[in-house]
Amino acid sequence: MRVRNKTWAEPLIEAHPELMVTDPLQNKGNWQERFKEKQPIQIEIGMGKGQFIIQMALKYPHINFIGIEIQHSVGAIALKNALKEKLPNLQLVLADGANLDEYFDNGEIKRIYLNFSDPWPKKRHEKRRLTYKSFLHVYQEILVEHGALELKTDNQGLFEYSLVSLNNYGFVLEDVFLDLHHSDEALENVETEYEHKFSEKGQRIYKLSGHF
Amino acid sequence: MRVRNKTWAEPLIEAHPELMVTDPLQNKGNWQERFKEKQPIQIEIGMGKGQFIIQMALKYPHINFIGIEIQHSVGAIALKNALKEKLPNLQLVLADGANLDEYFDNGEIKRIYLNFSDPWPKKRHEKRRLTYKSFLHVYQEILVEHGALELKTDNQGLFEYSLVSLNNYGFVLEDVFLDLHHSDEALENVETEYEHKFSEKGQRIYKLSGHF
Repeated sequence: MRVRNKTWAEPLIEAHPELMVTDPLQNKGNWQERFKEKQPIQIEIGMGKGQFIIQMALKYPHINFIGIEIQHSVGAIALKNALKEKLPNLQLVLADGANLDEYFDNGEIKRIYLNFSDPWPKKRHEKRRLTYKSFLHVYQEILVEHGALELKTDNQGLFEYSLVSLNNYGFVLEDVFLDLHHSDEALENVETEYEHKFSEKGQRIYKLSGHF
Repeated sequence: MRVRNKTWAEPLIEAHPELMVTDPLQNKGNWQERFKEKQPIQIEIGMGKGQFIIQMALKYPHINFIGIEIQHSVGAIALKNALKEKLPNLQLVLADGANLDEYFDNGEIKRIYLNFSDPWPKKRHEKRRLTYKSFLHVYQEILVEHGALELKTDNQGLFEYSLVSLNNYGFVLEDVFLDLHHSDEALENVETEYEHKFSEKGQRIYKLSGHF
């Protein structure tokens, strides 16, 4: 709980159980019930203030999106932003992304987005990186067969590591962009708030996508 | 034959059959006989003026190296440079790298180096890129089981393509460097002449390595 500096956060979260889930274990296997339409579900692990997942939900109305964030103070800002849009295809979750297999049934998810995850640069923290093999195993469990994963980062070390880790796991790469914002893909790209700030400074953004 | 501007090239090549092979089909399966010691063989496809392969042969005396170049005019310069060193573990070949399976027996090679290959950026030329699947198939044929491949390039498009193509082929990545000259690997790195020129200008050099 890191909300000391945001007194409005907890009351707002408590006031909106229709949009923000705080106990995702209750929904395992039944996530479709929380959406207006039964549609493929895509999730973002670490949604931050929600810019990416809200824009995605606006852009792709025929997909159901779930944004997951561990920090209440940040997740509350995402909630505030999402409330302005009233999207029938968006749900937010306050929970630890490390326990995904407790929140989702096998095959319940169609696609996972990892955006600007913590790089954990020290070798002794390798197991905490969200592309470490134990995480990949969990992703594969909750994804449909040949389910997709997309990763964006500005961190060179994390991208190098993720390419090797995903390859060694047997992940099938479809696209690699070593400078996303100067590629053909730039037009289609939906930015996170972090990405916007960094790419404006001229920092390279890396992206990969593919399937298990 | 692109030697019109180097009248000394052909006579030099003809004068040194002990170091430069012009008809590699004759040596298929018997490359060890051309070296002083029987040692693992590593080859560079497209050696240019030979800086990389000559330095490698100096640095690793317990490996036998073969540098292959299609252009006579460039290969003749490599020959000139190699003659200064008298290396018992180096052989040069004037031939088209596309026909490797005609020059080498199955399993005859331990490791392949692709340095700064032509990027062939147009989609319709994809099949000419040295990491297109048909080339990978030939590499796997002439390599020992789980034989290694290393690739260096300054071309972002070729590197992105190669990561995907190698992954899709089933190649096992061991290392990826998105800025080789500012990595821990920089100290160990043996430069090509092209690489030296480009990295001095501040251009990023990409590298990957792994095995089949």
